[in-house]
This record gives sequence, C-alpha cells and structure tokens, in this order.
Amino acid sequence: MSSRIREQLLSLLLEQGDAFTSGEEISRRLQCSRTAIWKQIEELRKEGYQVEARPKKGYRLVHRPDRVAPEELKPHLRSQRFGWSIQYHSQVLSTQLIAHDWARKGANEGSLVLTEEQTKGKGRMDRAWHSPPHSGIWMSLILRPTITLAQAPQLTLMAAVALTRALRRETGLDIRIKWPNDLLINGRKFCGILTETRGEQDQVQYVVLGMGINVNTLEDFLPDELMKVATSLAIEGGRTYHRVTLIASILQSLEEFYDAYLKQGFEPVRILWEEYAETIGREVRTETSQGTIAGMAVGLDPSGALLIRHQDHLQPVYSADID
Amino acid sequence: MSSRIREQLLSLLLEQGDAFTSGEEISRRLQCSRTAIWKQIEELRKEGYQVEARPKKGYRLVHRPDRVAPEELKPHLRSQRFGWSIQYHSQVLSTQLIAHDWARKGANEGSLVLTEEQTKGKGRMDRAWHSPPHSGIWMSLILRPTITLAQAPQLTLMAAVALTRALRRETGLDIRIKWPNDLLINGRKFCGILTETRGEQDQVQYVVLGMGINVNTLEDFLPDELMKVATSLAIEGGRTYHRVTLIASILQSLEEFYDAYLKQGFEPVRILWEEYAETIGREVRTETSQGTIAGMAVGLDPSGALLIRHQDHLQPVYSADID
Repeated sequence: MSSRIREQLLSLLLEQGDAFTSGEEISRRLQCSRTAIWKQIEELRKEGYQVEARPKKGYRLVHRPDRVAPEELKPHLRSQRFGWSIQYHSQVLSTQLIAHDWARKGANEGSLVLTEEQTKGKGRMDRAWHSPPHSGIWMSLILRPTITLAQAPQLTLMAAVALTRALRRETGLDIRIKWPNDLLINGRKFCGILTETRGEQDQVQYVVLGMGINVNTLEDFLPDELMKVATSLAIEGGRTYHRVTLIASILQSLEEFYDAYLKQGFEPVRILWEEYAETIGREVRTETSQGTIAGMAVGLDPSGALLIRHQDHLQPVYSADID
Repeated sequence: MSSRIREQLLSLLLEQGDAFTSGEEISRRLQCSRTAIWKQIEELRKEGYQVEARPKKGYRLVHRPDRVAPEELKPHLRSQRFGWSIQYHSQVLSTQLIAHDWARKGANEGSLVLTEEQTKGKGRMDRAWHSPPHSGIWMSLILRPTITLAQAPQLTLMAAVALTRALRRETGLDIRIKWPNDLLINGRKFCGILTETRGEQDQVQYVVLGMGINVNTLEDFLPDELMKVATSLAIEGGRTYHRVTLIASILQSLEEFYDAYLKQGFEPVRILWEEYAETIGREVRTETSQGTIAGMAVGLDPSGALLIRHQDHLQPVYSADID
C-alpha cells in the first residue's frame, strides 16, 4: 500500500517539475493524510531523492537518484503488457534465477525482474557477466509463447532485432548484431541476450529472456580482460543515458516484435535480423559437433539457422560461437 | 553412513537366503561392531523387514516388505550409469518437482527420484496422475543429452520404445504405444511418460523423464472415472509383479536405447516405435492449431512427427491428443 502511495507521490512531483505543490493539494489528490505523505517523502529521501520542503509553498523534487525502480519506470512505459508486473531488487545474484522461480510459481507473461546490480550475472554457457551497480540494465522478462521447443531459438533472434531497433532509435548509434545473441558497436560488445526455455514434450511452457546492457559503464570500470572486446553506450555515445527511458523503449519494441512474431511467424524477424547483422557477408569460422566449418555467412534460413557457404554448399549452423 | 551399512547388511542377508548368518560373520564382513549391526537390524524391522534372530545361529530374513528403496533396487541394477544415484522418498508431491530441483543443483545424468506414493503426481498438460502407495512405479530420471531443443521430443519416443521392450520381456504382455507417450494393454492405459526439458538458446541443459506405471494396482483401487480407460500390469497379467525387478529392467533398457540414440540418431528408435505402435494403420483425428486433422496414421517422419494421411497428403503432427 505505502509503496503505491510513494509511486503516486513521485509521479505527482515529477509532473510538477520545478514548481512547488502544497501538502494540501497532494493530500487531496492522493486521498491520504499529510502525515502519510510526510512519511513517504522521508522514504523517498532515503532512496536518494532530494525533496525540497518550504513553509507555505509545499514540496518540489530537486534531485532524482539514478534508479530503475518500478515507480521510476512505470510513468515511462508505453507497452501494453510487458513490464507492468515487476520484481525490483537493488542487488541480486542473477535476475534469471529470480525469474525462473517466479515463472514456476505462475508469473504472467510480461512479468519483469529488474535490478541495479548482479553479483553473479551470467551469459551463455554459464560464462560470467560483469554487472556493476547502477551502470547498466540487468533484467529478465517472462514469456509464455504457444510455440514448439524447436521454435524457441527464434526468440533470441527476435529479441536481438527488437533491442537493436529500440537502442538505435534512442541513441542514434550504429548497433549491429553478432550471431547469435550479442549486440555490438564498432565491433565491441555492449549487450548480451540469453533465452532459457522450459518445455513439456515438444511445447514451450515458458521462456526467460535475459538482457544485460552496458549503458553508463565507463572504460575505467570495465574489467581489464574485457577492455578490447567490451564497450558501453556511454563510451560510444560520449554521453550518459537515462536507463529507465531505454528500458521503456526496449519493452515496447519487444512487445511489438513478439506479437508480430506470434501472428506472422519468423519471416519479418529474419529480414530485419539480416539487415542489422554484423555477421552477414563476413568470413566466419565455427566449431560444431561435425567439425570446423569455415566460410562466408550468407543469411538465416527460414528456421533461424545461420547459413554458411562451406565447400560449395550452404551449411546451416544452429548454435555456436563464431570467430 | 548408517544407511550404507543397512544396505550392505540387507544385501548380505538376501544373499544367504534361508540360511542363518552369525553376528560375528556379519560383523567381520561389514567391518563394524555387533552393536551397530543390531541397531541396523532394528531399523530394517521398522521398515517392515522381518529378521529372525536365533541364539547361536544368528540372523536370517523371513519377510521383505514391498519397497522400491535403494537397498532393494541396487542389487538388481544392471545399468552402468542409470539409477545408481538415487533420491528415495516414501511419499512426495511429485517426483518431477524433486528431480527438477536436483538437476538445477547439478545432479549427474542417470540420477533417479523414486517414491512409493505421489500425492500430486501429474501427466501431460498438468493433468492429475493417480499414484497410490506401493502399487506402482513412480519415478523421474535426469538426462543431460547434447542435443538441440528441436530434438528433445524424440526422447519421449525413445523412452516409450525402451519401456515397451523392457516390460514386454518381463511380463510377456502385448504392450503397445499410443502416440505420443502412453503405453497400453488391450487398449487401456497403464503407463504414461512425461519429458520436461530445460534449455539455453537452442541447446538442452537437462531433461527430466517422468514415468508413471500402474503395476500391482487392482481394479477396485482405480478411480471410477478411469475404470474404462485405465489398467495395470497385474490386472492384465493376472498376477503381481516385483516392482524392483521391473525398475532395474527399465533402467537397463533406457540406458541402452539412450546410448544408441546419441550415437546412431533417431532412426533405430523410429523403426521400433512403428513396430510397437497401436496408432499406426489406424484412423485418427486430432485438433491442432491449424484445425482438425483426420486420416490414417502411417508412421513417423525422420524427426519423430506423426504422419497422418489427410486430404491426399501426409501431414506431420508434432504434439497433440489423438482420438
């Protein structure tokens, strides 16, 4: 209850900008006592908001901390279903773990786990993912598509396209997709996408779509071993970005592409993926269970496999690291 | 430790059959004190074993309860890897739930969850599965195959073939497979197989293979609503079966077919599945997302889809209920 009042109070203060709002006015609009309001203002201050209080004038917000909490995010949401049900934690081991537990307990499609910091974030194949506090977007979205297990990998490609579109629009940067799930700027990775699926027989029960995005991370804060291969939106754009705005934009884009994918199938995703891909038209080399495959990456097949021209035929590759 | 001594003690007593074994002899072979042995004999008695103790002669086993506990199962195991690591519980909600938790915590391939009774057993699509105490085989096996999500449904078919082969050999009954995951005798179901998969991107991380088998269930104990569609090995065979013997045989068969599947692919499974199928050559009708499909079931395609002759073409069906 109180967090709901806090959310409404914050919206109201944000709405007023630099102007003061009287306690009486707030009390009337939120339909609660002035003592309750005072209590919530104290709570906001503890979270890093600076609220100026002047006798006879009222309250105004003079500084907002950089948080991705629900009360910050919700006023920005333009999606219909994605991101309205939120679990927010200031620190977690990994948002994927929390989202899996939540999904097993019946969380609805579009439920979102958000955090400021992951202490044990992970990428593909259990590789560690560096997720320092307040500098990036570390989140997991629960999906419940009526598709088969065979189709599940298409969701990774769908998400890569949706994130690229949203982040290009928000930042103007030349974001490219590296097969299958990395987003790059100038050849360096700033974003990883991880889809984990749970299924019964051949049907998907749920998917947890994990996203890790280096947003305002500065070069000094990247681990040494990543300096040459990693980057962030801030490093590439030469400015910081408002994370909540980016999250709202990503969720809207994901919802649009996801709905289109369920309705029209994989083809629209496939076409845009090829358009955004760093990988297409390049010589690549990959290790598969059938040995090394080297050749030019020419596109995606209708199921989402990467087609590599190898010894005069097109070899589909379903999942692999490529050099 | 003590359960390990109990296991060894039970093996020794079983080995001796009707003959007595002296406390001294047991103490020497198990390398523990006679007090420790006495304690374990008391434990065995609590579990329903009747151990006769005669001064100067020693101990012998005169009655064994019908349990599927590890110490009963292990002397019968002929598999190399399947079933050696066991979680045994006298009662659980569902062996699938326990196996998923165990797999997430890193359980090895072949780890097995066994129980005497499930209070919330489930089949496909969360349908309830009646699992009364001590009358059936309720178990879940953890697999970690290096296959794609698209291939995972083939494991259901592989398991149906492996169980049919093992149970035909043990009982001599005419067991048939109904698409995709039921085993029947005389048109009635006595066994269901459920495969639940967890994957990352397009790769399987683990599969929990759940099996529910009505073994010694008598007609009076089947729920009324199931009387016409359900049966048990005992009802059909006119005798009771030693569950532990059946489990050992199933695990050996599963291991053989699983290893062959990973090495040689789906084709050997496909051929035997068609041989054992109740479904092939029959008129079937099924609801799919593309509408009703009715026609003769003619076989499996190379990926494991059921082929139905429908309006002059062969329609592959990947997962559905058929009438």
